[in-house]
Amino acid sequence: MWAALEPIGRDARSGGYRRFAWTDEDAILREWFAGEAGARGLDVLEDRAGNQWAWLGDPDAHGPGVVVGSHLDSVPDGGAYDGPLGVVSSFAALDALRDKGFRPSRPLAVVNFGDEEGARFGIACAGSRLITGALDAERARGLSDVDGTSLGEAFARSGRRLEHLGPDRETLARIGTFVELHVEQGRGLVDLGRSVAVGTAIRPHGRWRIDLVGTANHAGTTLMADRDDAMQAFAHLVKSARIAAVEHDGVATVGKVQVTPNGVNAIPSHVTAWLDARAATEDQVQAIVADVGDKVESLRGTVTEESWTGATPFDGTLATDLAGLLDDVPLLDSGAGHDAGILAAAGIPAAMLFVRNPTGVSHSPAEFAERDDCHAGVDALVRVIERLAG
Amino acid sequence: MWAALEPIGRDARSGGYRRFAWTDEDAILREWFAGEAGARGLDVLEDRAGNQWAWLGDPDAHGPGVVVGSHLDSVPDGGAYDGPLGVVSSFAALDALRDKGFRPSRPLAVVNFGDEEGARFGIACAGSRLITGALDAERARGLSDVDGTSLGEAFARSGRRLEHLGPDRETLARIGTFVELHVEQGRGLVDLGRSVAVGTAIRPHGRWRIDLVGTANHAGTTLMADRDDAMQAFAHLVKSARIAAVEHDGVATVGKVQVTPNGVNAIPSHVTAWLDARAATEDQVQAIVADVGDKVESLRGTVTEESWTGATPFDGTLATDLAGLLDDVPLLDSGAGHDAGILAAAGIPAAMLFVRNPTGVSHSPAEFAERDDCHAGVDALVRVIERLAG
Repeated sequence: MWAALEPIGRDARSGGYRRFAWTDEDAILREWFAGEAGARGLDVLEDRAGNQWAWLGDPDAHGPGVVVGSHLDSVPDGGAYDGPLGVVSSFAALDALRDKGFRPSRPLAVVNFGDEEGARFGIACAGSRLITGALDAERARGLSDVDGTSLGEAFARSGRRLEHLGPDRETLARIGTFVELHVEQGRGLVDLGRSVAVGTAIRPHGRWRIDLVGTANHAGTTLMADRDDAMQAFAHLVKSARIAAVEHDGVATVGKVQVTPNGVNAIPSHVTAWLDARAATEDQVQAIVADVGDKVESLRGTVTEESWTGATPFDGTLATDLAGLLDDVPLLDSGAGHDAGILAAAGIPAAMLFVRNPTGVSHSPAEFAERDDCHAGVDALVRVIERLAG
Repeated sequence: MWAALEPIGRDARSGGYRRFAWTDEDAILREWFAGEAGARGLDVLEDRAGNQWAWLGDPDAHGPGVVVGSHLDSVPDGGAYDGPLGVVSSFAALDALRDKGFRPSRPLAVVNFGDEEGARFGIACAGSRLITGALDAERARGLSDVDGTSLGEAFARSGRRLEHLGPDRETLARIGTFVELHVEQGRGLVDLGRSVAVGTAIRPHGRWRIDLVGTANHAGTTLMADRDDAMQAFAHLVKSARIAAVEHDGVATVGKVQVTPNGVNAIPSHVTAWLDARAATEDQVQAIVADVGDKVESLRGTVTEESWTGATPFDGTLATDLAGLLDDVPLLDSGAGHDAGILAAAGIPAAMLFVRNPTGVSHSPAEFAERDDCHAGVDALVRVIERLAG
């Protein structure tokens, strides 16, 4: 399965992946998913937001079922594992169960959630947020990519029915339990010397757009004293984000910026930047954003919240149960958001399995997991499915 | 003439112009130029770099002649006057001379220099630099725009012969004197209460590309202490440029930046920034760049010179002569580079006329010149042509 996925959306220069929602690359990934499902005799259903569900057994007649999976899209220049590891491991687990002669007592599915990274339209987990109603369909339709194409236009151009976009209770009713396997995005398992962990919670996190306004002028003829340079304001913002994160023991990142006009000899008139902030508690995140907000106010800029996800605990009994089942693997929380967190927040029993990442690096071509650890992840998934659908 | 130019390459959102070399907008501007020339019975010649020359009289038989003009391209979101004012005023001056029954003793031309701003391929005054040999044709061909299209490809696609690109002695031999009229890009004339000035020199200036390298990683799961964030390095760079400019009494601008991967939840792995630095003397500019270079070195980045233009005085006798002719208008130097400076550096007698800009703002949609001052500029051009070709 990895060999077929390897070239899709890979940037020749960076070696990283550029797999964004509702692009040609996304369509190829969806075809790959449908092909793998078909080869195993699974029935592929697409929900109102375009998430793909490959069912073994009829979830409407015999459900709700057990769902495993993750996503296939990527951040810009992302790695090969964030997302695809969960989907590939899920198909591999079904294969192992079939070889063992396992007969599930409930329907089983592998899911491919669309637009998990939000790399194109700015909202992470857009696929799961849409079907649970955490993201309003009207708002989603109007989200725009850098070229001015709206999510609604891209969705419709992909051949899907725009009027269907929105909450999907029928799909949610089919999910008895969701278990998402994911490469770890930190070094928790490396420090513990373990291959696999069970997730306990998603840390609170959010995204804020910051607009800084200057006055466009000529770079060669405008005295330093006469300048109102939005790039200087941006430099202050970037430093303030780091200071605030250290102060409140969280993390803050300014990873994306758009400069107007972005010309070598023009003083910038407008800089739009995005702040990503996370911490162990909601109060810490809000303290970081408040500090950055004070700085932005002093720079005469504005802060707009684009997304906010409070602390999301997974089902505690389920997590403890699974950790025990898996020979007492460790329990870890996640600084990254996941579709499993969105479903958990919507009241659906959900759990996560993390697979060791030797460098802790993620969202980068250097993202990696050892083959043995990947196999340990598949084995864990096999045992989890046996427990939940045995 | 202004009405026909007004919509070409205008961005509906910003109200500014996006007229970049060898684009569709550039082709329309060139057609406009050829049309205005044709309507006046001028012969349009294109040189080896694609600059357009509209001749009255035969410069090869009766030359060298007197050339007036400027350029039609713009920076991103540029104003309406930087460039076009010189071309429109030149045609208007020829009209006024014709109406007066003026019979030139030498051939006259209006020129439209291509790619003056360097907005697409990064080298300002590329058209004049190419024909004088100040920009090597081989290097020019390889310059790339943000989409990876090379200048050579764009030039060839526009229907021009790539093998012709390079120094053009035949064209240079036709120029007896070049006078470029330009909107002022500072407030010198406002402070003096005058409409028109004669240029004395182009201040030394250059562009440097700065590459800052970090380590891509996930914004949510990487502790602040574990980060190697190229955006933080960029913030230090931006502040150091301002400090260095103030310290050495020049100007420095970081107006353009490209971030990799530029994702909201990815720590940047690479930031490329461009520094524009200028001052009254070459030593001051080099001191600014040295200070910034020290900072970049401490950030483990690299600095690459993309262009450098030393102090370029215009022909002093000519400038004094023209200022006297124009009722003792003031003499001003220019913080901005111009094609007239490139020709002057190549030994061609050149001069500039500046027209008052009430706000001093340039490279912005707010760039402006009062109608009366524009007419004063045309009148000055008429008197200059009468003197030089009478």
